Amino acid sequence: MKGIVANTVTELENGSIVTPKGFSAVGIHTGVKRKRYDLGAIFCEVPATTAAVYTCNRIQAAPIKVTKESIAEEGKLQAIVVNSGNANACTGKRGIEDAYLMRRESAMHFNIPEHYTAVTSTGVIGEYMPMDKITAGILNLQPESTEEAAVAFNQAILTTDTINKRVCYQTKVNGKTISIGGVAKGSGMINPNMATMLSFVTTDALIESEVLQQALSDITNKTFNRITVDGDTSTNDMVVVMASGLAENDYLTPTHPDWDDFYQALQQTCESLAKQIARDGEGATKLIEVEVTGALSNEDAGKIAKKVVGSDLVKTAIYGTDANWGRIICAVGYSGCEIDPETINIAIGPIQTLINSQPVTFSEEQAKAYMEENDTIKIKVDLHIGEGKGKAWGCDLSYDYVRINAGYRS
Amino acid sequence: MKGIVANTVTELENGSIVTPKGFSAVGIHTGVKRKRYDLGAIFCEVPATTAAVYTCNRIQAAPIKVTKESIAEEGKLQAIVVNSGNANACTGKRGIEDAYLMRRESAMHFNIPEHYTAVTSTGVIGEYMPMDKITAGILNLQPESTEEAAVAFNQAILTTDTINKRVCYQTKVNGKTISIGGVAKGSGMINPNMATMLSFVTTDALIESEVLQQALSDITNKTFNRITVDGDTSTNDMVVVMASGLAENDYLTPTHPDWDDFYQALQQTCESLAKQIARDGEGATKLIEVEVTGALSNEDAGKIAKKVVGSDLVKTAIYGTDANWGRIICAVGYSGCEIDPETINIAIGPIQTLINSQPVTFSEEQAKAYMEENDTIKIKVDLHIGEGKGKAWGCDLSYDYVRINAGYRS
Repeated sequence: MKGIVANTVTELENGSIVTPKGFSAVGIHTGVKRKRYDLGAIFCEVPATTAAVYTCNRIQAAPIKVTKESIAEEGKLQAIVVNSGNANACTGKRGIEDAYLMRRESAMHFNIPEHYTAVTSTGVIGEYMPMDKITAGILNLQPESTEEAAVAFNQAILTTDTINKRVCYQTKVNGKTISIGGVAKGSGMINPNMATMLSFVTTDALIESEVLQQALSDITNKTFNRITVDGDTSTNDMVVVMASGLAENDYLTPTHPDWDDFYQALQQTCESLAKQIARDGEGATKLIEVEVTGALSNEDAGKIAKKVVGSDLVKTAIYGTDANWGRIICAVGYSGCEIDPETINIAIGPIQTLINSQPVTFSEEQAKAYMEENDTIKIKVDLHIGEGKGKAWGCDLSYDYVRINAGYRS
Repeated sequence: MKGIVANTVTELENGSIVTPKGFSAVGIHTGVKRKRYDLGAIFCEVPATTAAVYTCNRIQAAPIKVTKESIAEEGKLQAIVVNSGNANACTGKRGIEDAYLMRRESAMHFNIPEHYTAVTSTGVIGEYMPMDKITAGILNLQPESTEEAAVAFNQAILTTDTINKRVCYQTKVNGKTISIGGVAKGSGMINPNMATMLSFVTTDALIESEVLQQALSDITNKTFNRITVDGDTSTNDMVVVMASGLAENDYLTPTHPDWDDFYQALQQTCESLAKQIARDGEGATKLIEVEVTGALSNEDAGKIAKKVVGSDLVKTAIYGTDANWGRIICAVGYSGCEIDPETINIAIGPIQTLINSQPVTFSEEQAKAYMEENDTIKIKVDLHIGEGKGKAWGCDLSYDYVRINAGYRS
């Protein structure tokens, strides 16, 4: 988890969403969930420049609508309040009223304008929110700038997740240290396009809203939109980036000399969170990374990579540590993208299985050993028809996926 | 399985692909598979007018290419030879040569022209065909017009299927009885678009190739292309209809007075086979039928129905007998089709769960009982924005799907 990932972009092992200047967080239990934390907030001491991307599901949950309204006003947020256990999705007019009420109570509690307040929900679809618990809980939200508080927030946004997902990168802009902290939840109903999970990123960089939005949209297409757990695009989810500006750098724009470092740090943050989500996919035992090269375009490469990593047959083969490259090329073939059926190479880890679409003799034992011994299974597909390249991430499909999802509501 | 399904279209309980006049069949064991039958043929005593639809996967198996060539020549076939256990897909030049050899040996054995001969393979992708076993086996193919022979053929084309899939309908054309018999295989890698499975239909109707092709293409879009087991579109599969013409009716065209009956009988045959395939999906315990009404178009309705029936979350919920309509509306939302988020009704069997996108109070116990007690789970979605309607079929996702596919090759 530690190490230098680019010239001047460094991962901070113990960093979090409260590492960037100005941010605090909190997570508590209110009773929406039986035992675990279920309400949390991120707070910024100043109105933070904000960018966001949302699910492309046509059915969007009530809090998505309310949060969009807030951000549309000035492009700034000071507080994000999140509950888990109930998604407030498909709840009709009452759901919208509940989301407004949650925003209003939160704004009053933090003493900020309503349009500086975002609300987000995750959990079961189609049940009304227990608003008595939510509104009582809001009064108990006391954000702090401690690691414990950041962890508590993270726990408050989880549903079927088994691990906390967090990351922090630092870089220099105008010689000043910029931190970017991120947190995420999501382990099922994940096929972002955009964002079928929740992810919140904080930074103390000084940057304008449009520039931040452009960077986030670009990066989302290469990171969050490239993971899939089960192909189901959720109704609720979003990525929000809040920038406090307290690092006091000069405004970041693509022509700023340190732009590339900032962009890299933000991309590393998002890619790390995306991979953590995929690795923690419901029932997952492995992270699968598919890299496609030689495609007609980067877009095609990403699309093909996502088809391969999303194939139930590929996912079950990897769960069974079976180097079944036939299922990989089958998924390449139905991706809908341009390919040449005669020029495809496929490798599973270090084992080449197909060269120019011709099967290669390889050691099944060696392939099995690679899949048994590694937590991350890498599949490389070279199409040999262009320069396009891209990656996608997913997880294997196990008995536990079925167990978790056959009984999620009960 | 028995009964009158339209005015003059009748299901024949003990009918099969050898019921139509002129057809015989055979299935034998050659050693491609360890124990079970693995090579079969359908033979017609005259060159039969033929129509076919193929997988749209860009990676197409060698026998698909060879069969396309055969049919392209005159639009007629006299023999189809099928092996299971090896798909002859992704096998490069040698695979093509093997498919040609299989066709040549079959044509010689049956003493017919090569272009009246089709070859088809299903099974593992990416391994060379054991041609010594295939060519030796071809010499032992002795088709008969008995039920036992039809059953043997059916067994010879199965892979992970657990049941034989067959059906037979009869109708009258010019007062003469026309039979349509069908057989199919397929239980995994099924997301036809077209046809991710094998299906062979025989009839003694007299009809020209173009007319038959048009009817088959139309009907395929409403039947075989509306089933999904795991969303994976295979490299190999096809539907072939052979018409011997021996019923001696007048040529069937859309203006023939009995056209509708013939079309209905063909559609019932294909729909029955498609549903049998979905019901026997790998690990399936239930058939799921999703009917969408009130869509902007029939095409949209079919697309939405297929998204719902293909959702891993819907499939696991039904396996868990959980009336989780939130996952259904979620899949409606990401279908990519026009919807109004505020006007959606959803029913699971007799239980209405959502009216005008507002949750309805219903008995969870009653819903659970419906799902436990029925082999076919019906989901109805009314969008209330148009007149479009369509159905799709699939199956639940169980532990056994994972078990079967984590160890299929070994």
